[in-house]
Amino acid sequence: MVNPFFKNNGPYSISVILDELNLKFNEIDKDQNITDIKDLQNSKPNEVTFFHSKKYKIAANNTKASFCITTENLKNELPKKCIPIVVDNVLVSTAVITAKFYPESINDDFDITVDDINKTEFRNKVKFGKNVLIGQNVSIGSNCLIGHNTIIEKNVSIGENCSIGSNTIVRNCLIKNNVKILDNCVIGKHGFGFFPTQNKNLRYPHMGIVIIENDCEIGCGTTIDRGSMSNTTIGKNTYLDNQIHIAHNVRIGENSIIAGQVGIAGSSIIGNNVKIGGQAGISGHLKIGNNVEIAGGSGVIKDIPDNTKVMGYPAKNIREFLRENR
Amino acid sequence: MVNPFFKNNGPYSISVILDELNLKFNEIDKDQNITDIKDLQNSKPNEVTFFHSKKYKIAANNTKASFCITTENLKNELPKKCIPIVVDNVLVSTAVITAKFYPESINDDFDITVDDINKTEFRNKVKFGKNVLIGQNVSIGSNCLIGHNTIIEKNVSIGENCSIGSNTIVRNCLIKNNVKILDNCVIGKHGFGFFPTQNKNLRYPHMGIVIIENDCEIGCGTTIDRGSMSNTTIGKNTYLDNQIHIAHNVRIGENSIIAGQVGIAGSSIIGNNVKIGGQAGISGHLKIGNNVEIAGGSGVIKDIPDNTKVMGYPAKNIREFLRENR
Amino acid sequence: MVNPFFKNNGPYSISVILDELNLKFNEIDKDQNITDIKDLQNSKPNEVTFFHSKKYKIAANNTKASFCITTENLKNELPKKCIPIVVDNVLVSTAVITAKFYPESINDDFDITVDDINKTEFRNKVKFGKNVLIGQNVSIGSNCLIGHNTIIEKNVSIGENCSIGSNTIVRNCLIKNNVKILDNCVIGKHGFGFFPTQNKNLRYPHMGIVIIENDCEIGCGTTIDRGSMSNTTIGKNTYLDNQIHIAHNVRIGENSIIAGQVGIAGSSIIGNNVKIGGQAGISGHLKIGNNVEIAGGSGVIKDIPDNTKVMGYPAKNIREFLRENR
Repeated sequence: MVNPFFKNNGPYSISVILDELNLKFNEIDKDQNITDIKDLQNSKPNEVTFFHSKKYKIAANNTKASFCITTENLKNELPKKCIPIVVDNVLVSTAVITAKFYPESINDDFDITVDDINKTEFRNKVKFGKNVLIGQNVSIGSNCLIGHNTIIEKNVSIGENCSIGSNTIVRNCLIKNNVKILDNCVIGKHGFGFFPTQNKNLRYPHMGIVIIENDCEIGCGTTIDRGSMSNTTIGKNTYLDNQIHIAHNVRIGENSIIAGQVGIAGSSIIGNNVKIGGQAGISGHLKIGNNVEIAGGSGVIKDIPDNTKVMGYPAKNIREFLRENR
Repeated sequence: MVNPFFKNNGPYSISVILDELNLKFNEIDKDQNITDIKDLQNSKPNEVTFFHSKKYKIAANNTKASFCITTENLKNELPKKCIPIVVDNVLVSTAVITAKFYPESINDDFDITVDDINKTEFRNKVKFGKNVLIGQNVSIGSNCLIGHNTIIEKNVSIGENCSIGSNTIVRNCLIKNNVKILDNCVIGKHGFGFFPTQNKNLRYPHMGIVIIENDCEIGCGTTIDRGSMSNTTIGKNTYLDNQIHIAHNVRIGENSIIAGQVGIAGSSIIGNNVKIGGQAGISGHLKIGNNVEIAGGSGVIKDIPDNTKVMGYPAKNIREFLRENR
Repeated sequence: MVNPFFKNNGPYSISVILDELNLKFNEIDKDQNITDIKDLQNSKPNEVTFFHSKKYKIAANNTKASFCITTENLKNELPKKCIPIVVDNVLVSTAVITAKFYPESINDDFDITVDDINKTEFRNKVKFGKNVLIGQNVSIGSNCLIGHNTIIEKNVSIGENCSIGSNTIVRNCLIKNNVKILDNCVIGKHGFGFFPTQNKNLRYPHMGIVIIENDCEIGCGTTIDRGSMSNTTIGKNTYLDNQIHIAHNVRIGENSIIAGQVGIAGSSIIGNNVKIGGQAGISGHLKIGNNVEIAGGSGVIKDIPDNTKVMGYPAKNIREFLRENR
């Protein structure tokens, strides 16, 4: 199996990093090597992190990073060993530095390095259709099928007994065993994430991948975007119907069933055994519990606790909704 | 014209069928040949049927089948000539037996048997683009066009004067005359039908096809799933816009107009001269009458009588909706 | 840069035009050449125009056209120099005559004239994937990328630094600089416009194109239809997410952000700096002002003034909506 995660182009000396942000520091060792950029919890010495909102104060207090991109107001929350890099806009500066470490995480141009599957090691291992293209850093397990005109771009690991349909595009993706992905899907492109600025929006990096666990099925024309700082994941034995859109950083649990044309906005977390009816929409950054049922056409704009059935826009308890709408 | 329906792999002796269900019967002729599996009304002697709900009691009383998959509670409704096969879960057992007769109705892997159109009889008969693939058991009438990268998989009959766009996939489909199917569609894949079970859902067979009558137009990126036990049908001179999803077993009448991004869930029946606005959704198993107008964005969750205009979620009389929402 | 607009097959003598409509006039010079068909404001001498509704009375009073397709009731509004061509159904007759001048504006069959990019002038100028096809009357600026299986059909002008993804189809389109169009899109097909008639709808011409201004991004699986009499335009630095449908004649302003699965119906005009949440729908012929925010899932059925936030179906002021739906 390959590692489908993005290649880290570092380390960079701290002076290179400060140059990227048009900053100068006097009191530091300019040659200190910085090996990576991570969030507050996961970063280690010789790494840089970022801190942009008071709600992450506890994590900031305890970060192990050597440097932290932050603001004048927040910098005093950092431990002594972590040197603040004070900027105007933390997220924009973080995007700039992340792009430095992971340049391929911004660029979603087509993968020019793919090759005809007939010219690869997979030609005797996989059953495949006409005009199948395979990128670099790809692994495919035994007993897999790949349909016509399908493109497995770089950084993809496919397990055993998987069936990929025709006209589908996959990149930056970890697909486990017994997964079916039907026709005309696009799995693993970057999310719809950028800093809006007049005249020229600034894309932020999407270093995450898409993880599809065992026994999932993904319907036709579905798009699943990869994560920005974390991954987009589809849990074991979860089935998605046609024309669904799963945005970046979404996490869906096990044994869930999602009907056609559903959309789930960025960073929402969906539990296990969840049923979502057709055309329902779920806003970003929500938590939908286990065993939740969301009626078709609903618009969910707040968290839903476990074992709840909801309907409507905004979605509410289904009994209440039906009583009010007799 | 070809017969686009699935090939019946039977007959099987009744003992083979009982073995599939891990059952043993003593009082029967184990070598009796069973030729097919059908619903209660349509089955004949030497065929097996299934009966899982009291609402089909009258059909059960009159079935001509020799055997019927059913439950302990329901078995006494069957006529004397029909021997009950008592199981715990009728639908699961029916799926198992249907899969035995029609194994290709479960499997929607890409069609590995397709060939470049230049190597087929159609090369002098059809105007076609680059990289067009044609499966087995396909017929195409005179004066047809097939666009680039389009795949006509097995079991497809296309009439005269049809225009199929580019990057489109068609399988298990009967397309009549003067039909246009635009780009990036997927027509005829199995529906989103399965028995949800923890850790490993069980797909049920989709033996139906998609039937598109004369003079229809199907927009870009639209998906039309084939039926499970019946067919999915689009009536004469009905036009579908882009990014529509039509689920399995749906039947749409004649002269209807369906705008972009509409979704129609499984087994709903739509009348003639129906107009459906963009993004409207129709739940499963509903009956929408003739001359009905459904406003864009509506969510229809109950039957709509003829000559009615509805709007809202849940959809109600349009005047009432607009009065309440001034 | 090419001219991506449709070729005018005229001029035609007025007698040819009257023949198309099964009309005969006695008092005219049958050999007078008619050079084009345009709307009331833009038409000139020796051109034909059309006038079908009293709301265009002022434009009719001042038209410069030599002939006007209109009705018995409206004909007296025309200036003396404009000879009325009286018909039963102005729009149907206009469609017939427009189709005479611009036959390719009706027909959206696949472009059979495309060629492998390796056989074109672009092979040394563009970075491209496998199986890329290029039509006639195409120009592509410097530093562009075109992904695998993508088809640039006829009448397309692409500026500099553009990146087109894989499996995408573009036709009749003017794409400016620094534009990204991701995978599986269909840009520039005709709109969902026709005269519904029993048994055989009549398509009307779509002579407009799609114009995508500088620095736009178009997500995966998005469809943008070209205009009928005017163009469909996407303003500078506007970003569209996945699975969006933009209908014919829609005009979107600059710096707008449109989330996944949004649908905008025909001829609506969207301002600058507009944010539209996922799955929102906007009815046809509406005017959405500048700096408007439309919450995800909303259904907009009337004009929205500048600087307004709306939510709900029908969409209303967002504070009011949230107060009523606590």
